[in-house]
Amino acid sequence: MKICKLALYHIFMSKDSINLAIIGTIKTPWLSPSNMPIQPTGAKKVKGTIVLNKTYVNGLKNLEEFSHIILIYQLHLITEPQLEVIPFMDTTSKGVFATRSPKRPNKLGISIVEIESINENKIHILDVDMINDSPLLDIKPFFEDFDNRFNTKKGWLAKKTNLDKENFKSDERFA
Amino acid sequence: MKICKLALYHIFMSKDSINLAIIGTIKTPWLSPSNMPIQPTGAKKVKGTIVLNKTYVNGLKNLEEFSHIILIYQLHLITEPQLEVIPFMDTTSKGVFATRSPKRPNKLGISIVEIESINENKIHILDVDMINDSPLLDIKPFFEDFDNRFNTKKGWLAKKTNLDKENFKSDERFA
Repeated sequence: MKICKLALYHIFMSKDSINLAIIGTIKTPWLSPSNMPIQPTGAKKVKGTIVLNKTYVNGLKNLEEFSHIILIYQLHLITEPQLEVIPFMDTTSKGVFATRSPKRPNKLGISIVEIESINENKIHILDVDMINDSPLLDIKPFFEDFDNRFNTKKGWLAKKTNLDKENFKSDERFA
Repeated sequence: MKICKLALYHIFMSKDSINLAIIGTIKTPWLSPSNMPIQPTGAKKVKGTIVLNKTYVNGLKNLEEFSHIILIYQLHLITEPQLEVIPFMDTTSKGVFATRSPKRPNKLGISIVEIESINENKIHILDVDMINDSPLLDIKPFFEDFDNRFNTKKGWLAKKTNLDKENFKSDERFA
């Protein structure tokens, strides 16, 4: 009966939520959140491997024709999302949706990485900026014509230079 | 007892899955998947509104400083994801991960839209290419320095011209 109650509680809690399948995991050299790059632009040529669950392998057909892919994954080590955060690249508090902080509701991460090679259910990738074993939710081909934007207003990030972008690392804050 | 079994089944099925909160909904003029634009680039200046659940409203602080945001949402009308699809912009079958087809595992959509204005928990946006009432999962600020890529290999999409991109609409295929 205790298990039954727990199960019903689980269903009740899912009312305003959706369930997503983990379609694979991302293997990377980053074993802890400290001192890792905060974006693919700061992780140039760092190698990783997507291990896709074999069930989905037919979905990879034609992917080798592209050089870059968009990954959607979960920032699984985050335990306490916050609505206001002090992001890595600044010293004052911002609304979390105005930052790329991992401490966000749903803990979703997006990274654009480069394909090195594909071998059955393994995609060898470059520019990895996520923690080892991040649960993968989707892979999309990057298409410049759809995905680039120009002359955008960059908000508080506008102060950050190209140098920052390539060298900024995370710190203990989200460890 | 029947309910209990159903509940346990639900938990069992969630083993390799994650649960995400629906943080809001996206209101758009697109009430059915037929003849809607397939990307924001094909929906220039089409207006929509994000209605964020009020719980999350403090997360919007500073967002008005940015002109563009990345939305992650669910393509909720899709009932049968497929591993191989004939995408809108071509006539032959491709692996779904090499396309932007909505019929993908986890039915996740990404759109980069422009902010028109923000009023409490409502974000008025432009360039909307998603179906009305799409469940929203995340909002991130678009940051050119992180998010643009150049000289990418565009795979089978390379054949598509700028004209295609702006005029291509969906058809009955995913209706």
